[in-house]
Parts: sequence; C-alpha cells; structure tokens
Amino acid sequence: MKALEEKILQEGEILPGEVLKVGSFLNQRMDVPFLMEMGREIAQLYANDNVEKVLTVEASGIALAVAVAAAIGVPAVFAKKNGSINMSGTMYCAHVHSYTHGTDNDIVVAADYLPAGERVLVVDDFLASGEALEGLISLVKQANATLVGCAVAIEKGFQNGGDNLRARGVRVESMAIVDSMSEDGITFRH
Amino acid sequence: MKALEEKILQEGEILPGEVLKVGSFLNQRMDVPFLMEMGREIAQLYANDNVEKVLTVEASGIALAVAVAAAIGVPAVFAKKNGSINMSGTMYCAHVHSYTHGTDNDIVVAADYLPAGERVLVVDDFLASGEALEGLISLVKQANATLVGCAVAIEKGFQNGGDNLRARGVRVESMAIVDSMSEDGITFRH
Repeated sequence: MKALEEKILQEGEILPGEVLKVGSFLNQRMDVPFLMEMGREIAQLYANDNVEKVLTVEASGIALAVAVAAAIGVPAVFAKKNGSINMSGTMYCAHVHSYTHGTDNDIVVAADYLPAGERVLVVDDFLASGEALEGLISLVKQANATLVGCAVAIEKGFQNGGDNLRARGVRVESMAIVDSMSEDGITFRH
Repeated sequence: MKALEEKILQEGEILPGEVLKVGSFLNQRMDVPFLMEMGREIAQLYANDNVEKVLTVEASGIALAVAVAAAIGVPAVFAKKNGSINMSGTMYCAHVHSYTHGTDNDIVVAADYLPAGERVLVVDDFLASGEALEGLISLVKQANATLVGCAVAIEKGFQNGGDNLRARGVRVESMAIVDSMSEDGITFRH
C-alpha cells in the first residue's frame, strides 16, 4: 500500500534494537481516517473469503482490527494479555514472547467469543518474528475455528516471521513490508 | 441510546462487586458495526464543537475512540498504562486507580501527541467512579489543550463519577446510564 510506505518514510523513526516507531499514526496516536482506509484495503483482499470474525490482541492491534471489522461488517475480538476479574469460564490461552517489549505474556480469549467453525481473520499492527500472530493462530486452532489468514499493517520482512508463516501455507497480507532499515533509509519489498 | 440499553438488557451480565460484564459486544468481543453506530451518535452530539482529537486509554477504550474519531474524521490517541521502550521524550502522566481490576496504573501519553490548544474529546467505554476520565482530563490539562467534553458508552449512574464531573461543569455524554442494577434487573436514567 503506497500510502503506508510514504507515511513510514515521512513519520517513522528507527530506534535502537530494530524498533520502527510509528506511534504518530499507527499506535498511541492513530491516524483514524487512514486506519479506516487500511481496513477497507484489507477487507477488499479478503472479500471472497467469508470472514466471520476478526481476532487481534490488545492493545495496539485493536484499532486496525476495528477498522477491518467495520469494513467487512463483522465483530472483532481481542485477546487479553492477562486475565481480569471480568473473565470466567473456559479460556483459550497461548504464550507469547515480545521482542519489542522484552516481555512474556499469556494471551487469553474466552471460548464463548471464538466459536468452533467460525472463519477468523487474524489482524495485528506489526509482524516481526511472528510470535504474536503464532499465538493468535494457536487460539484459533484451540477453538477449532477456521483460520482464513492474517493481515498486518507493517511487516518487518528481515525478521522472517511472515515468510515462516507463508512457508507453512498461511496467507499473510501486509500493507507494507520493510525489507531493510538503517540510518541510510528504509527499503520496501514489492 | 435505546439500542444500547436493549443490548445491555439482552447481553449484559451482572457480576459480584457491581461489575456489569458487556464483553460480548463492547469489550473483548466487539460488535464493530454497533460500535461504529455509537461513534456516529457521539460525533453528532459534538458536531458543533470542532473536536480535533479523541483521547482514550488502553485497552478497552480504543475501539470506541476509533469509532468516534472515524465518524468525526480526526486522529485518536490512547494513553498507555505503562511506559514501553518505544516511548521517549516529554510525557504527561496521571495516576489512576481501577476499582474493576483492583489495580493502580500510571497512564502516560507522549507530549508530541497532545499539542497545546488542541480541542480534545475524551472517550472511554465505561464511566463508574470516574477515575479513568479524571486521569485523562488531567492529561488534557497538563498539555494545555482544551477539553471539549467526555463521551462514554455506559455510565454507572449510581457510582457518581459522571455527576461529579457534570457538577464541575464538564460536559459528559453517556450512551446509556445505568441507575441501578441487581438480580431484579437493570434500570436506566432517561
């Protein structure tokens, strides 16, 4: 998506540890009209796949998931990173390591919100090593739901999470794939 | 908003500790088409107020904030509950106690994302004691931005957070106000 590549070049900041900071439009500060446009683009790519639910993980995946679900006209569910006193009953749970935050989280979703057989599109803002998507895909499998595919805003192509998923036959649509980034600039895969 | 009251009656669950669980449509599982409708309703109420930004707090406020911001056509910002390695520079910070989760959080937003003078609408999913809104309003004040008002999906009228804010002259729009809830049922303020 050309418009996303331009925004990354204009507003993205490269921080130590291969962190690409896009807090000015994708998370923390969200360019919502632009997010809705990405949502429509992703909905278009999956237009023939009968998506029945969008699944993401809190917090930074929620905005794009809402944009995608709004464009398709289906509900969205977010996995929580910890339990809460509002949760009870059967849960699906997966362990996720975050390289960006240096943390380990159990992501959890109530079984009631992910029925067996449902056609699920997994959405997140970033795809790097793929740990978060793998965790979400694990939740879909535990639920005996059907994984339609994944969609993310920005994939870090050089961290191979996306290619590993594709090699296993998982459909992954990324609105922009960063193949390299350094002080010299950012290159995209086309 | 009649449709929200009906959804609360149909799908809401009352849990111990005056918790109203609406995870089936408002958080965790999100009825996104319905959220977008609430967003348009809130945008309509603030149509003459030149809202320039929507401010919320992660995680459960994000979906409604995106819906409101999409309807108005402005960006949204969410305060984080903890710092992260992606954050640096000047921050505004407020301390918030959550009665629902029994936790204390510092909510933080980067100063760059909340410029002085901007007209800010504060949005959250729930308003009970008002701690979260007070924290968000504190961020707006620290930024020398202008608080246009607040909008929430569900207000627990019996916990007085909303009425305390209104008594201080803050405009608070709630899509539904629960005035009492018990095993006998839920009553709404009209």
